[in-house]
Amino acid sequence: MKPRIDASQLPRGFEFSAAACGLKKTDLDLGLIVSETPAAAACVFTTNLVKAAPVLISQSHLRRSSEKMRAIIVNSGNANCATGAPGLAASRSTAARVARTFHCKAEQILVCSTGVIGLPLRVERILRAVPYLAASRSTRPESFAQFTRAIMTTDTRPKFAAASCHIGGKRVRLLGCAKGAGMIHPNMATMLAFVVTDAAASPTVLRRALRDAVGRTFNAITVDGDTSTNDTLALLANGASGARTLRPDNAEYRKFLGVLESVCRSLALQIVADGEGAHRVVEVEVRGAPSERAADEVARTIANSPLVKTALAGGDPNWGRILAAAGRSGVRFNPDRVEVRMVGILMCRNGRAHFFDERAAHRKLLATHVPIVVNLRAGNGTARIWTCDFTGDYVRINASYRS
Amino acid sequence: MKPRIDASQLPRGFEFSAAACGLKKTDLDLGLIVSETPAAAACVFTTNLVKAAPVLISQSHLRRSSEKMRAIIVNSGNANCATGAPGLAASRSTAARVARTFHCKAEQILVCSTGVIGLPLRVERILRAVPYLAASRSTRPESFAQFTRAIMTTDTRPKFAAASCHIGGKRVRLLGCAKGAGMIHPNMATMLAFVVTDAAASPTVLRRALRDAVGRTFNAITVDGDTSTNDTLALLANGASGARTLRPDNAEYRKFLGVLESVCRSLALQIVADGEGAHRVVEVEVRGAPSERAADEVARTIANSPLVKTALAGGDPNWGRILAAAGRSGVRFNPDRVEVRMVGILMCRNGRAHFFDERAAHRKLLATHVPIVVNLRAGNGTARIWTCDFTGDYVRINASYRS
Repeated sequence: MKPRIDASQLPRGFEFSAAACGLKKTDLDLGLIVSETPAAAACVFTTNLVKAAPVLISQSHLRRSSEKMRAIIVNSGNANCATGAPGLAASRSTAARVARTFHCKAEQILVCSTGVIGLPLRVERILRAVPYLAASRSTRPESFAQFTRAIMTTDTRPKFAAASCHIGGKRVRLLGCAKGAGMIHPNMATMLAFVVTDAAASPTVLRRALRDAVGRTFNAITVDGDTSTNDTLALLANGASGARTLRPDNAEYRKFLGVLESVCRSLALQIVADGEGAHRVVEVEVRGAPSERAADEVARTIANSPLVKTALAGGDPNWGRILAAAGRSGVRFNPDRVEVRMVGILMCRNGRAHFFDERAAHRKLLATHVPIVVNLRAGNGTARIWTCDFTGDYVRINASYRS
Repeated sequence: MKPRIDASQLPRGFEFSAAACGLKKTDLDLGLIVSETPAAAACVFTTNLVKAAPVLISQSHLRRSSEKMRAIIVNSGNANCATGAPGLAASRSTAARVARTFHCKAEQILVCSTGVIGLPLRVERILRAVPYLAASRSTRPESFAQFTRAIMTTDTRPKFAAASCHIGGKRVRLLGCAKGAGMIHPNMATMLAFVVTDAAASPTVLRRALRDAVGRTFNAITVDGDTSTNDTLALLANGASGARTLRPDNAEYRKFLGVLESVCRSLALQIVADGEGAHRVVEVEVRGAPSERAADEVARTIANSPLVKTALAGGDPNWGRILAAAGRSGVRFNPDRVEVRMVGILMCRNGRAHFFDERAAHRKLLATHVPIVVNLRAGNGTARIWTCDFTGDYVRINASYRS
């Protein structure tokens, strides 16, 4: 990932802006993305039974607009969740206010919120800021950079990625940003991510591309196993590049999918690397499982084990905890055949200790990227999950979030 | 729980001893319980697919001895897990050595280990200490107290409980002790617990009583959701009280079961209270679930949520995280009907914020016992799970365990 986005990387026909409307004490807390023409949209929302008001409203808008959207408005500082009828009314009036400004229908607006659950949203602060958001929007990289900051909560840095490819001789650009930090889990937990592109695609094709890309990227990361009420990933394609419309399953579609996946993977890994209090990104790869699904189950159990994650915080080559986590995953295998490698060092072979230099392993484990490979030798299933270590800072951040 | 056990509380016909055999640097690390006559035995073992050598050996001994045991030998400092054939040989030779001393068969001995996984067990240190263990055994409370210390790992204090009842005019005594700390999870995770009684019962009746008692006690606690390779709960009944033999389902059986359950609950709650780094015991009660099983699922999801547990460490009345955890449990309910109470204060009603004094709530949440009641209003299922908060000390303890 490049540290900055330059003007040549911005997809055409999208504008960005941000404001500090007063939901946070001082920081930017409101952001807007506008497409100059209605853009095909595909979204993935949280699977939590408890869904925040903006998720319910955005789902309804997406259906009612036939997935052609004009803008996304996002606030941080308040999740507008567990806020009942007034919460729903707040999201609705936010969308209506943006729609009036851009002379479109309210259902062409997506609304997102992130922050504390259960506090009434001071929606009047958002409504008051919409004219400023609209007036200050621009296609400049600086406006996009401000947007990426406006959606942050406990994130320590903005997260963004850009990529491009050629479709029928025309350059097509993708630009994405995300907020994450704690509560990141498979199935899109407490995470907002937005990807915009000037490619042309129908909502159906776009939805399919997003689903394919998410499985191997956003749904393959976990920070603490908690799943939020507000997760939203939105992909907008406005066709402003002039490239021809993507069709499923040809070479151009696959090229676009590859680029989309690289943007999603970059954002997903930035989220893990900025997991609350995290010092390292841990890549858990499981091989030789009875099935893909079994591999995924074992990898997630290891990646979510507090004992494994605290050991990793200390750079402890404690492969026994990895073996124990695999053993309680519910997947059947013969423990006496298992191999465990950390940072490339074989530590467990045939289910028992394999000699290694513990001090050298400890030094290598203090790296910012720690690969773990577990081979169950029980089949051909493989899976890869990314997570982070579990540090005292995680507890400090989460024990004091509201105070 | 009384802070100490006195001689009158000790069941008859059991002797205890402890030694420092050198598995730990200086502390007691080896303990022995002996019954003067073969005692009926019932055990519950870990459900982890990866089982430590002593678990495999004890399971086999229990079968081969028709559940009539003479002694339990326990070491701390090394789990003897993932140690392959030499590990199995170590547990076997430990049992054989104890059996030779007491002129019984090796299969009448239970063997337990707890500590680090994957390190070869220096079994010669255990074997060398057996004569001392045998010679120093006694029925005195001091010997029992030493035993309770010898089984500790990251525990900060020994855990024990005693109770008695009358069966047909004869006094019957129960005495239990346990080690726990981290990795405590439903289905008996990293935990050793031993309960001895001078009641008379067949192994079949004993097994049933233990199963009944465990469901509402040891299997209703969780510290971090990790499940160990070494968990063992053993109950021995030697009949030395002279009381008549317990029969299933009469009033005497139920009286015995009640007393057994009170000992198990006391030990289970002591384990939670001494969870690694824990400052408080949290009681999660779920009511109004579609079924008992659904209630249990919701309660466990809340009790294992790192976000809920870190909020509790900070005394934060963050009921939104409780609602979000319930929402991702997989159980169906209407979020708009849910009620959440913490420390007796109604914080969420009909799925949204209910006014409460946040500062007063914060002060009450700093107590050592924090009850949480979640009413889903979706049925009659109820469940109760005990857990502890998740503090920076948990991370500190587990990141440095082996260094």
